Amino acid sequence: MKRRIGILTGGGDCPGLNAVIRGVVKSAIIRRGWEVVGIEDGFDGLLKTDRTRLLGLGDVRGILPRGGTILGTSNRGNPFCYPVENNGKTILTDISDQVVDSIRKMGIDALVAVGGDGSLKIALELMRKGVPIVGVPKTIDNDLMETDVTFGYNTALETATDALDKLHSTAESHHRVMIMEVMGRYAGWIALESGISGGADVILIPEIPFDIQSVCRAIDERCRRGNTFSIVVAAEGAYPRGGGRVVRREASEANPVERLGGIGEYVARELTSCLKMDTRSMVLGHLQRGGSPSTFDRCLGSRFGVGAVELIDKERYGEMVCLRGRDIRSVSIEKAVRRLKLVNPRGQMVYAAEELGIAVGRR
Amino acid sequence: MKRRIGILTGGGDCPGLNAVIRGVVKSAIIRRGWEVVGIEDGFDGLLKTDRTRLLGLGDVRGILPRGGTILGTSNRGNPFCYPVENNGKTILTDISDQVVDSIRKMGIDALVAVGGDGSLKIALELMRKGVPIVGVPKTIDNDLMETDVTFGYNTALETATDALDKLHSTAESHHRVMIMEVMGRYAGWIALESGISGGADVILIPEIPFDIQSVCRAIDERCRRGNTFSIVVAAEGAYPRGGGRVVRREASEANPVERLGGIGEYVARELTSCLKMDTRSMVLGHLQRGGSPSTFDRCLGSRFGVGAVELIDKERYGEMVCLRGRDIRSVSIEKAVRRLKLVNPRGQMVYAAEELGIAVGRR
Amino acid sequence: MKRRIGILTGGGDCPGLNAVIRGVVKSAIIRRGWEVVGIEDGFDGLLKTDRTRLLGLGDVRGILPRGGTILGTSNRGNPFCYPVENNGKTILTDISDQVVDSIRKMGIDALVAVGGDGSLKIALELMRKGVPIVGVPKTIDNDLMETDVTFGYNTALETATDALDKLHSTAESHHRVMIMEVMGRYAGWIALESGISGGADVILIPEIPFDIQSVCRAIDERCRRGNTFSIVVAAEGAYPRGGGRVVRREASEANPVERLGGIGEYVARELTSCLKMDTRSMVLGHLQRGGSPSTFDRCLGSRFGVGAVELIDKERYGEMVCLRGRDIRSVSIEKAVRRLKLVNPRGQMVYAAEELGIAVGRR
Amino acid sequence: MKRRIGILTGGGDCPGLNAVIRGVVKSAIIRRGWEVVGIEDGFDGLLKTDRTRLLGLGDVRGILPRGGTILGTSNRGNPFCYPVENNGKTILTDISDQVVDSIRKMGIDALVAVGGDGSLKIALELMRKGVPIVGVPKTIDNDLMETDVTFGYNTALETATDALDKLHSTAESHHRVMIMEVMGRYAGWIALESGISGGADVILIPEIPFDIQSVCRAIDERCRRGNTFSIVVAAEGAYPRGGGRVVRREASEANPVERLGGIGEYVARELTSCLKMDTRSMVLGHLQRGGSPSTFDRCLGSRFGVGAVELIDKERYGEMVCLRGRDIRSVSIEKAVRRLKLVNPRGQMVYAAEELGIAVGRR
Repeated sequence: MKRRIGILTGGGDCPGLNAVIRGVVKSAIIRRGWEVVGIEDGFDGLLKTDRTRLLGLGDVRGILPRGGTILGTSNRGNPFCYPVENNGKTILTDISDQVVDSIRKMGIDALVAVGGDGSLKIALELMRKGVPIVGVPKTIDNDLMETDVTFGYNTALETATDALDKLHSTAESHHRVMIMEVMGRYAGWIALESGISGGADVILIPEIPFDIQSVCRAIDERCRRGNTFSIVVAAEGAYPRGGGRVVRREASEANPVERLGGIGEYVARELTSCLKMDTRSMVLGHLQRGGSPSTFDRCLGSRFGVGAVELIDKERYGEMVCLRGRDIRSVSIEKAVRRLKLVNPRGQMVYAAEELGIAVGRR
Repeated sequence: MKRRIGILTGGGDCPGLNAVIRGVVKSAIIRRGWEVVGIEDGFDGLLKTDRTRLLGLGDVRGILPRGGTILGTSNRGNPFCYPVENNGKTILTDISDQVVDSIRKMGIDALVAVGGDGSLKIALELMRKGVPIVGVPKTIDNDLMETDVTFGYNTALETATDALDKLHSTAESHHRVMIMEVMGRYAGWIALESGISGGADVILIPEIPFDIQSVCRAIDERCRRGNTFSIVVAAEGAYPRGGGRVVRREASEANPVERLGGIGEYVARELTSCLKMDTRSMVLGHLQRGGSPSTFDRCLGSRFGVGAVELIDKERYGEMVCLRGRDIRSVSIEKAVRRLKLVNPRGQMVYAAEELGIAVGRR
Repeated sequence: MKRRIGILTGGGDCPGLNAVIRGVVKSAIIRRGWEVVGIEDGFDGLLKTDRTRLLGLGDVRGILPRGGTILGTSNRGNPFCYPVENNGKTILTDISDQVVDSIRKMGIDALVAVGGDGSLKIALELMRKGVPIVGVPKTIDNDLMETDVTFGYNTALETATDALDKLHSTAESHHRVMIMEVMGRYAGWIALESGISGGADVILIPEIPFDIQSVCRAIDERCRRGNTFSIVVAAEGAYPRGGGRVVRREASEANPVERLGGIGEYVARELTSCLKMDTRSMVLGHLQRGGSPSTFDRCLGSRFGVGAVELIDKERYGEMVCLRGRDIRSVSIEKAVRRLKLVNPRGQMVYAAEELGIAVGRR
Repeated sequence: MKRRIGILTGGGDCPGLNAVIRGVVKSAIIRRGWEVVGIEDGFDGLLKTDRTRLLGLGDVRGILPRGGTILGTSNRGNPFCYPVENNGKTILTDISDQVVDSIRKMGIDALVAVGGDGSLKIALELMRKGVPIVGVPKTIDNDLMETDVTFGYNTALETATDALDKLHSTAESHHRVMIMEVMGRYAGWIALESGISGGADVILIPEIPFDIQSVCRAIDERCRRGNTFSIVVAAEGAYPRGGGRVVRREASEANPVERLGGIGEYVARELTSCLKMDTRSMVLGHLQRGGSPSTFDRCLGSRFGVGAVELIDKERYGEMVCLRGRDIRSVSIEKAVRRLKLVNPRGQMVYAAEELGIAVGRR
């Protein structure tokens, strides 16, 4: 039977999305003769037919090494909570019936939803309304349960580790403390793993509220052992014990930390006042999402794309592909989005960091 | 108790070895106050005391981003089969008693052996003679059983995938078939995974003897679909169905393939004669072993180093660290070296490649 | 005659400094049999004998690919204006006599000063007090007269261009305007050249005060031609026509721009208010100084080092090495530090940018 | 006046060609409203109208970071010496009248020829037949006169230097001599400059026939100074003093060197026989042509493209753009192709290498 499947990418962009799209298109067309409809800008593109297009083999030629997503993505467009203009006011409205209808009209008989926590939850709701969906997990923070890792995470780690290598030269030459803020609002994986790989001396993650005195002490001890510089990696969601979470730009008078524009700057200021060292902070920011995907992410993304088509072929709707060891498996989306995968403060990765002499924000 | 442990790196060099050494030194010294003796050039260094030295924290400073091994390595030096000069002749001699004695004299009460198949087998033999040993698996080809992957493999894949990206420009601009030969004498993992990540059209691996007619056909079909170029990745150990294995440089009159100096050149010549396309081959060679380790390999190497010290601490001699999913575990060395981990011709990775439209050397 | 020369690196660190040091050491020792004294942390190290050490060939082994400077550097330590503690107060004092004396006591009969504008001016003053000095120009901003370029600049461009490549994926996938702030307080070379190489749509430099309306218009026109994203590169010293210069962190109530923490954020805010597009800004910051030097900077740095020794050999004190076309030449330091090399608003590089359709901040 | 110009890229591919094409298209269309015709596969594409197409702004979108040429290229297609089939035989025929005619029929009133020595000579001949042509120099070997450098060369150097960094790890860990063969049939620039940047110990170039005994001695001296490894870079056109040039694959019984398949392997074999060290050789080959162009090449290529359009605008036919210092200039093509730009054995670059202690193949 000639099938027509749709694919969309939702949430923040991530290296490897194009590998997934290419994997879906190739394995659907070459091996099965199906049709693939590309939906633009996440769930947003489901609302208008002019934002979908048939994807042929030519459309995915040469996209494997490219970052981002050729389909575009969006953090908006939740059809259960969609901003609709009404008499000059914007009201969040449930337009999911319309979306389900639109999917049917396009002749799409199964949908591949590539996205994180948020997008997969929307996918689940659409499933319940009768749309056959399979999922592909995407999270650059690596905070999704039920999969060892997802694509994009490894490339982000490469970018962060490379940045740490670069900061080392300056820190060492100028005898400075350099603080680098990386992504990770709730989960500290990027900070933890890039910190280990980049030879950091202190790592701050949301899962272990830090004690600034311990951080000072750790750096001070390094100085006394003759190390004239130190490197600190802080996840954006890291926060001082007893203090509130630091949210960039949304300042409040109540919390002096917030006014400073982020955890990196907060730590820099605190360290400057308690150590007699030059201190600099920087925010790695959007660089972490960009760039050509690493070989790991290209391979994983491609395999996820192939796996998603296989799930559709076997009509295992409501499942998403995942990685276990070296194998692609599948798991129910419902199970995967139940909660975030956080760093275990007593787990192996934190243990390894501490064995390597890295202070993970606590005594 | 103040302990003194030794560490050596054996076999071919590999990105991430320094991360292991640093991990061992840091976690032994900082956390336990032990002494670490570095042994130069693999098992060879066990024979002479002037080739060992105490490793301090200063010795491992700044080595994390560096390829190779600060201890040096060697493919020689099997103490059970050591080349000894005698009356002008070289006789392979069992000098293992001498080695065991030498280890004792150095006061080394446990040894970390970092190596592949060969080195770990030697370690096992020394164990049987009473030397307490723990292992750290090392294989750039990823052909060791009992661990998902080892360090070095990911960096080699990055190098190979980057090379494929580079060949694409030339192949496309000149409408050529480009053939790249990568490492993998027995296991085709590097060819297979870099081929998927680098967008290859044909992948040849030792586990699936190829049919040159199928390869020609695959490229010919691409041409007819309008693709004016093709990329072939061949593991050095790949060979034509019915033909013998191709061993570079050790030519024999019996096998015309061998005279050509490698599988890449053999395939190039065959394709030139059956297709009317410009064909070029290249050997990636030693580049695959070199370079700064990727973030994956730095993290894995560091964790392996930490894990090895923990194994010693728990006196679990005869075991080696390994990776399962995201966890460091341990397994008996004996089990790990029993046979090589080859690509399963019916396994997931080959399946994914074929779903992506890649010809894996067979119909 | 066996000579003893000194070398110091001053000012901000820069990729290629180690290549210069290595070049000086190798060509002084191997070819001439001289002695080389390394002085730590710029001119600061001239004040204390315990901060100098003889450099041998072993000290420069393996430093060519490493960023930063093995000698350390400092932005402080001007001997004509040195912070001296006196009765609890810090008074800026001329201690140059002491420094000249110290140089003599160390037996240094000629000094290689590697540094920018500031360091070379200090060198010039020391020259006038009788210290034989030759200069090696260093400026990551490329704002030094009398040399086509200096080392470090090319590596900074690579980092900035690579970052622009990364931002492209996100800008395109999310249909955003991305603004990247790069170094260049007075000279816009990095912004201009990385903007051309990284495919920017708007480039803002200090030499051409920008009109924010023109910038909005340029982006708006792109939108109307179907380009759903835009990339802006801004030198940190760029400023709006009629407005004051934007200095990060040193906020003043008088200038609302300054409160925002930098030109990137200022532009982001302005664009958000006049366009209906998602806008994000980031500061590339210290990453630009770090990392392994590019091949261009390694070669240039090495040749500069060799050239500096040759200048000493010929006793052409008061001169510095420079690059003209493909040749190393020399020029009087005095001439080189007279004024900064700024971008000519009517010059070739701005012309090229505009021909490529890039808005350089003006109508 | 609305003009229609053509552009073709000839000879071997080279990073930066797409930057030139994009520069030509952007500056012709955006600034002048001209039309640009893209001609496929070098001069070959001038023979058939179905191998030309109008290039719009959309065609050059996103091509700046991509290697190769979107127009394709060819080493064939000399219209003055074209292989024409006649009665089953291939006869080299002058079909230039046909080509001139074809250019007129396409309505192309000026042609941008991007190419090296060979392509520019063809362009010159076509000029003499009345075709208005401007040139853009292209040579990855950097052997073209009248321009400081061309695009592509810097990227090739980056690739070669990066490869040398990689070989260092293995050479050092295994105490080996590693020999890397790079491009450069007549000019040794790549070998010389990558050798300086990559920390080579011996550099062999065509301009200085080498003495194998000197090479052995240089490596031997390194050993005696305690360096247990050495790195040799050899241009493919380097050859032993008194011996013939080494041409890969075209073996002849008369010259035993040729049978070995290249200068790298020849040197490896010679060194193995005179030193007691492990020796390995590798050929960098096609990797040097590939990959995303470096920032230097992207900027230079873009400026060359802009400059070529300006030459047409000023009707300065018969000239080609070139780089002098930091400026784009122009020069007569005739002057540029008169002879190759070779390394001067007594020039600055060889001097610098020798001052750094590198043996450049001679006593």
